[in-house]
Amino acid sequence: MSLAPRDVRTHIATSDTTSITVRGYDLVNELMGKYSFTEVLYLLIKDRLPSREEARVLDACLVTLMEHGWTPTSLITRLAHDSAPGQVQIAIAAGLLAVGDVFAGTMEGCGRLLEGAAASSDPAAFLRQTVEAHRAAKKPMPGFGHPFHKPDDPRPPRLFRVAEECGLANRFVPLLKDLSAELDRQAGRHLTINATGAIAALLLEIGIPPVIMRGIAVVSRSGGLAGHIVEEEETRAARQIWRMAEEGIPYEPPPGAPKR
Amino acid sequence: MSLAPRDVRTHIATSDTTSITVRGYDLVNELMGKYSFTEVLYLLIKDRLPSREEARVLDACLVTLMEHGWTPTSLITRLAHDSAPGQVQIAIAAGLLAVGDVFAGTMEGCGRLLEGAAASSDPAAFLRQTVEAHRAAKKPMPGFGHPFHKPDDPRPPRLFRVAEECGLANRFVPLLKDLSAELDRQAGRHLTINATGAIAALLLEIGIPPVIMRGIAVVSRSGGLAGHIVEEEETRAARQIWRMAEEGIPYEPPPGAPKR
Amino acid sequence: MSLAPRDVRTHIATSDTTSITVRGYDLVNELMGKYSFTEVLYLLIKDRLPSREEARVLDACLVTLMEHGWTPTSLITRLAHDSAPGQVQIAIAAGLLAVGDVFAGTMEGCGRLLEGAAASSDPAAFLRQTVEAHRAAKKPMPGFGHPFHKPDDPRPPRLFRVAEECGLANRFVPLLKDLSAELDRQAGRHLTINATGAIAALLLEIGIPPVIMRGIAVVSRSGGLAGHIVEEEETRAARQIWRMAEEGIPYEPPPGAPKR
Amino acid sequence: MSLAPRDVRTHIATSDTTSITVRGYDLVNELMGKYSFTEVLYLLIKDRLPSREEARVLDACLVTLMEHGWTPTSLITRLAHDSAPGQVQIAIAAGLLAVGDVFAGTMEGCGRLLEGAAASSDPAAFLRQTVEAHRAAKKPMPGFGHPFHKPDDPRPPRLFRVAEECGLANRFVPLLKDLSAELDRQAGRHLTINATGAIAALLLEIGIPPVIMRGIAVVSRSGGLAGHIVEEEETRAARQIWRMAEEGIPYEPPPGAPKR
Repeated sequence: MSLAPRDVRTHIATSDTTSITVRGYDLVNELMGKYSFTEVLYLLIKDRLPSREEARVLDACLVTLMEHGWTPTSLITRLAHDSAPGQVQIAIAAGLLAVGDVFAGTMEGCGRLLEGAAASSDPAAFLRQTVEAHRAAKKPMPGFGHPFHKPDDPRPPRLFRVAEECGLANRFVPLLKDLSAELDRQAGRHLTINATGAIAALLLEIGIPPVIMRGIAVVSRSGGLAGHIVEEEETRAARQIWRMAEEGIPYEPPPGAPKR
Repeated sequence: MSLAPRDVRTHIATSDTTSITVRGYDLVNELMGKYSFTEVLYLLIKDRLPSREEARVLDACLVTLMEHGWTPTSLITRLAHDSAPGQVQIAIAAGLLAVGDVFAGTMEGCGRLLEGAAASSDPAAFLRQTVEAHRAAKKPMPGFGHPFHKPDDPRPPRLFRVAEECGLANRFVPLLKDLSAELDRQAGRHLTINATGAIAALLLEIGIPPVIMRGIAVVSRSGGLAGHIVEEEETRAARQIWRMAEEGIPYEPPPGAPKR
Repeated sequence: MSLAPRDVRTHIATSDTTSITVRGYDLVNELMGKYSFTEVLYLLIKDRLPSREEARVLDACLVTLMEHGWTPTSLITRLAHDSAPGQVQIAIAAGLLAVGDVFAGTMEGCGRLLEGAAASSDPAAFLRQTVEAHRAAKKPMPGFGHPFHKPDDPRPPRLFRVAEECGLANRFVPLLKDLSAELDRQAGRHLTINATGAIAALLLEIGIPPVIMRGIAVVSRSGGLAGHIVEEEETRAARQIWRMAEEGIPYEPPPGAPKR
Repeated sequence: MSLAPRDVRTHIATSDTTSITVRGYDLVNELMGKYSFTEVLYLLIKDRLPSREEARVLDACLVTLMEHGWTPTSLITRLAHDSAPGQVQIAIAAGLLAVGDVFAGTMEGCGRLLEGAAASSDPAAFLRQTVEAHRAAKKPMPGFGHPFHKPDDPRPPRLFRVAEECGLANRFVPLLKDLSAELDRQAGRHLTINATGAIAALLLEIGIPPVIMRGIAVVSRSGGLAGHIVEEEETRAARQIWRMAEEGIPYEPPPGAPKR
């Protein structure tokens, strides 16, 4: 059986009786109290501390996705907390499981597309052909469109502005805007860039690759779900959700069921 | 059936076609790009933005728990990611499920104990009796002791110093130090305050209640697990863990098994 | 560091290139096609195959808990599936996380109590004192009471009958009935034995210990949740649940929020 | 906002104070004690009770996947249980999250392919072209190949025999064998049908669609994981796994780290 090469190392962390080392830094003396959660998150992903501007862009992305009111993630966390009080990790983990392909998958898809454009010798042609291919296959373009925020998602312009203020809107933000213009041109109508599309561009600007973009969304949303648990302790909305389901989605015998 | 009062509200968030409101703030214009992840996390839990000092204390707590190398959380995330690549939320959520009673429960227990002492008319007596009761029941004191960091966990002194620098070591940090002295006195030997004990005290200092302390640990660790996924993409340590288990925990027929 | 004794074995399973061995049996030639899922589940828990009667009792317990319509488990599974279609394990696992202390913890508690009574030299006194202690502490008796099924949960009588037909109502079923009579006597009114109480007694009759009783509930419910996913594919009830939450639990600015 | 049609029903279950109805059957009087877990699972998926033969085929599939020794699922369950004892649902759910694309996705893929062949006017041509397309794209054929069981997985022949004995190897089992022959012919060497491939064929024979095939694997594996928890209570293998990781995957400072 040959499952893996035998010589595997980790660069992340180690500890001994008197110290903890994280990515080469002394956790206690070099990180705690000196850097923010967001800065150490960047360190853990990129193997270096961010500049002030990179940290601000990452914070803006994290803050964007923390909370959006009632969504599958917050509904699940509320319901799970009601069944397992005192085990907060259950409620948060259950909610995070809904950061799935439908709501987070587009970030990665948009990120890969922008990477492809940036690597192309003719980005304009790359974008044009990408839009053509998606339209021919009747596939939605990742990073575009929103069910509620119409005609425009209010978050992307703000995210672009933050990146610009930080001097970090140099390559992928312009490409996303070009993609948007090309999409509108071919569609003959305006489709909004959505928050996941804009975040994909900003994360690429600070060097965070598509493979972990959904992880950024997960970290961000974990904070929002902590807030839902605090409120659930007071309001017990879970019981209301349950009752509404009982009343609003009634049972009806299956067509071929025994009659009684 | 009466599951809940019918009149339940949420104070967390709402949105319309052009805006998103979070805890009364306009997400786009008042939070994104202006406040850090940590500050908005505080807002979602406490219903107000933190002072600069409160945010620094919360950041120090979050950074403390992000990473501790190989632990059940990181091992689980590595193994889950190997089975479900591209679904990063699975790997992070699975790992977070191990932020359970053994490793995180002590934070909440220590927090409740410090709250009890603070509310007591005679805190010194409260602490003395608490130590006596734990010792009589041979129960470990939550927030004390560490399997590896001996004689002292290096993190609490640093956390206390950050709280002191911020002017936020006024009530619960001194109580925890008093509890430590009382515990050593009764035990006749030194037991370290551990990181979860110190974090419980700091979180109380900034008004974060015990019920959500484990949630802070979960949010923190989610960031560490994102880092593990990035490394797993390169090293495939999961396969090494699997092989070591196959080799190091061999099968042996159960005593009463059919012989073959 | 000393995490564990170094000599750990497993009795569960092994495989080589041509065979798989499970608990000493050849999976392919001795188990597949010869024994039911329920029988092999018993083998994996008890290290021996069950008698026909033991398997029937275990099947009755499993069937009892598979489905109860809209509950936190089924609501969560529906919501999670909507966010991560094609990743069925996410939806089932998320739902199972709600098989928590509130809905499943009572099974284990009741089982431990019945074990205590059976081990006592005076079971009647044990039960009397147990009821007194719970009443004095105003704690609910695990295995008794039901929010909807009043005055009597219809499942326990049927479970007792199945156990009696199988000759497996010898010790713990009578003890549970004695406990019920004592509880009614002290309370001066009738409290129903509920399904988890009856199942705890039946599982003890077939030798399944309290520590894994909740695991039986989890296995059982996993089957029910598979059925919910099949229906969700057709009806998309998750979107209805979401909409009802948006409409039925409206946002209201927090009391101290900035006015706008 | 238009999330869903407003008129959604469920056919699964309902209850009133004295009865529980599941798929049109009275749970207490018509299902409990009369039908096995496997039969009710079939009812919940297919909206009718199975024949004796269909139940035997489903049992064979469920038994096949329950246990395979150390795998990511069992390793995760062991580790999670160690961190959250007494919360068995956490350990099982965490393990089930690893029933992901790598180990379970092939079942659904193989099922869809066999459905396609069965619906084709020229199944032989369909299979030939399918193999050609997979080979041209260098994609593995779902349901074929196994890392350890070489040259042949021992489970498929047994599964085919069970289906044949039950008179339920009429359409998809022969198509899978045809696919195997075509694959070997084009490859010029023998590739084993694996367990997930054979199970896909058997499940199609009894009318279980690809969309829920992974759900069958999840239900099956939940039983195996319950067995692991029972053993973990005795052996604490999790601590051994942890220690082996600490020793076998050592920390090494990242290349660009500060030197110390």
